[in-house]
Amino acid sequence: MLGVDPGSRHTGWALVTRVAGRFHLEAAGVIHTDPDATMADRLRTILRDLRAAAVLHRANVASVEAIFSHRSAQSALVLGQARGVALAALADAGLPVHEYNASTIKQSVAGSGKADKLQVGRMVEMLLGEHTVALTSEHARDACAIAMTHHLHAGRVLALGPQKRARRLDPRSPASWGVTLPVVKVRA
Amino acid sequence: MLGVDPGSRHTGWALVTRVAGRFHLEAAGVIHTDPDATMADRLRTILRDLRAAAVLHRANVASVEAIFSHRSAQSALVLGQARGVALAALADAGLPVHEYNASTIKQSVAGSGKADKLQVGRMVEMLLGEHTVALTSEHARDACAIAMTHHLHAGRVLALGPQKRARRLDPRSPASWGVTLPVVKVRA
Repeated sequence: MLGVDPGSRHTGWALVTRVAGRFHLEAAGVIHTDPDATMADRLRTILRDLRAAAVLHRANVASVEAIFSHRSAQSALVLGQARGVALAALADAGLPVHEYNASTIKQSVAGSGKADKLQVGRMVEMLLGEHTVALTSEHARDACAIAMTHHLHAGRVLALGPQKRARRLDPRSPASWGVTLPVVKVRA
Repeated sequence: MLGVDPGSRHTGWALVTRVAGRFHLEAAGVIHTDPDATMADRLRTILRDLRAAAVLHRANVASVEAIFSHRSAQSALVLGQARGVALAALADAGLPVHEYNASTIKQSVAGSGKADKLQVGRMVEMLLGEHTVALTSEHARDACAIAMTHHLHAGRVLALGPQKRARRLDPRSPASWGVTLPVVKVRA
């Protein structure tokens, strides 16, 4: 399971597996782009490096944060460019790509849709335990949270089936990981 | 010279050459994406088809419209995704990518930065003359206008040199094609 946190400057990625309910960080990295290069060259770097990471580490499914709103149209355009390249690179590598919105990721990993970045980061480290050594970058940590979200959702979808998807637990407690939250796919 | 007009639904492209001051449309097309497919699959289609068009038709330079503002953050994000993939696909095909803003394209092709879409389309058809047959799509026509803009600019940069770049002609007349307008590169 490859989680990706795209950005025009830094794109974090993390390959997380889950065996017997425990998370393992297999590989993680950050693709840095040269701020002095043209936008086309920077996007090509994201395209090539992310595709290479997906293929080399034999990821078989990917997830990316879904975005619906943004402060300004200008920053949305810049983020959209990096995000579009990440989605295309993953699809080009043959991976199905799932999208989860920010509150779903926070709720899945930290137990609350309103958890802050720090709380999510701490929960990622806690869930990974001794496998956390490589996660020095916040971008890779965010990518980890996205990969974990998919594990928690995919597992539940299989375990509970469609009938029980509406079941709701306390959103402020990690027990809410048992809830299958809506998986949102962006369609333009 | 490959001009590209990116969009999440329709991405127009046109290969335009210029011999002895006359434009020739070598090839043009529109990449349509399936509105029922996931965004990742649609972006992969743009990535693969645009890269294939650039390589098959042996383009050696590309140009895309630069965008600085947009009505809403949501639509900017969607357009940004398609645009980012187009830039990365062209760079991945080994082409240097130039960016021109909308008013530069209008001024270069139609003689006024405030020309409407229809005026630009008519001028494209007029400038291409008998080579216009393939241009049934507005997306390919827009791509043509972008390719022509690059020809007009690149030619002038070589012909006038840096000393005469500040020379200004009447912006409402096609004679203004002789003016070297600023080439804008987007940096995030």
